[in-house]
Amino acid sequence: MGELSRTTGVPVPTIKFYLREGLLPAGELTSPNQARYGEEHARRLQLIRALTEVGGLPLASVAKVVEAVEDRGQPVHKLLGAAAGTLVPTYAQAPDPANGERARELVEELIARRGWQVHADNPAALALTAAAASVLAVGLGDYLDFLDEFAASAERVADADLSFVARGAGPEDLVERVVAGTVLGDAMLAALRRLAQVDASARRYPPPADEADAAESSSG
Amino acid sequence: MGELSRTTGVPVPTIKFYLREGLLPAGELTSPNQARYGEEHARRLQLIRALTEVGGLPLASVAKVVEAVEDRGQPVHKLLGAAAGTLVPTYAQAPDPANGERARELVEELIARRGWQVHADNPAALALTAAAASVLAVGLGDYLDFLDEFAASAERVADADLSFVARGAGPEDLVERVVAGTVLGDAMLAALRRLAQVDASARRYPPPADEADAAESSSG
Repeated sequence: MGELSRTTGVPVPTIKFYLREGLLPAGELTSPNQARYGEEHARRLQLIRALTEVGGLPLASVAKVVEAVEDRGQPVHKLLGAAAGTLVPTYAQAPDPANGERARELVEELIARRGWQVHADNPAALALTAAAASVLAVGLGDYLDFLDEFAASAERVADADLSFVARGAGPEDLVERVVAGTVLGDAMLAALRRLAQVDASARRYPPPADEADAAESSSG
Repeated sequence: MGELSRTTGVPVPTIKFYLREGLLPAGELTSPNQARYGEEHARRLQLIRALTEVGGLPLASVAKVVEAVEDRGQPVHKLLGAAAGTLVPTYAQAPDPANGERARELVEELIARRGWQVHADNPAALALTAAAASVLAVGLGDYLDFLDEFAASAERVADADLSFVARGAGPEDLVERVVAGTVLGDAMLAALRRLAQVDASARRYPPPADEADAAESSSG
């Protein structure tokens, strides 16, 4: 266990906690008080760290993901559904009935326009509705003019996501790809969006020459 | 204050708390114990709710955003920078030096390849590096093959974001557009990505006929 801790950088008490919680399978006993931990344990630990630290998922969600990973013999679409179901984006109640109703209509129209094969009561559709209702509530409804532009970007990302998942060998690998890809992908996409915004902003609103020089010399 | 609470759905004790914390400007006194609250207060309340409930921002970050909104007379690129700086995506320490170093190289190469005018020590670049290092650590480095695809999507989203911001009239509106757009945009994009994934998955891994029928009848 000391070696597993050194390899992964996860403290021994944390490893013991994950073992107790069933998130990490027990090691192979080599003597009454010695167990062997292998590559599979190191990989599982990294998955748990990625989901909690980068993804910000609560342990209860991590437990569901681990359960899905360990439940063999399910058809692919069930596996993917189980994994994706634990990774619902933030949902908040619509601020008021009028905005909620208008947002619901906009989301339904968008789904129909894109020809997306999704249930209208999909948790992600509800999350999108709540976010759109908030946009309306803060008086910035014209942001929703760009919904189709965002949907087109999301389709491009989802295509890449599915190509990545399809490379998976076996159910454990498939589910790992779905959950790690979705959670870490969200983190990467949020960061990439901010970088692209900084770039777009620098082009649209050029800083004064002295600052531009400073940026030039420190970013080269 | 009772009317402001009814209009916005924010409870009176919460409104009092925001007033004490300086997040909401005081109302216009009409008598020693009566104040008038206007459209500006309702809008500020909705902005605070959107940032906390949908965006999940801590109150300290909301306070910084409100401060930026209230600080007039800054040039546009400073305003945008101040607002964006409070909206840094999740950052986690790179799991280990080797992955961290490799991830840093990949991110630098990506930024150079895209020709993005951003500092290498931009918080978003560090967040991207941390997420990429986690992808490497969980043994799914081939996900990073899609970084350019994701970057191209992010550019498309950032272009729409900037077009939306450019419609702003005056500094308060500009900053509101940056912060609400970035935070609510993240929420919408995460939800749209999941919807697009469900659609892409249904096309790639068609469910058995009986389930497809059920989905058809309930989503129509």
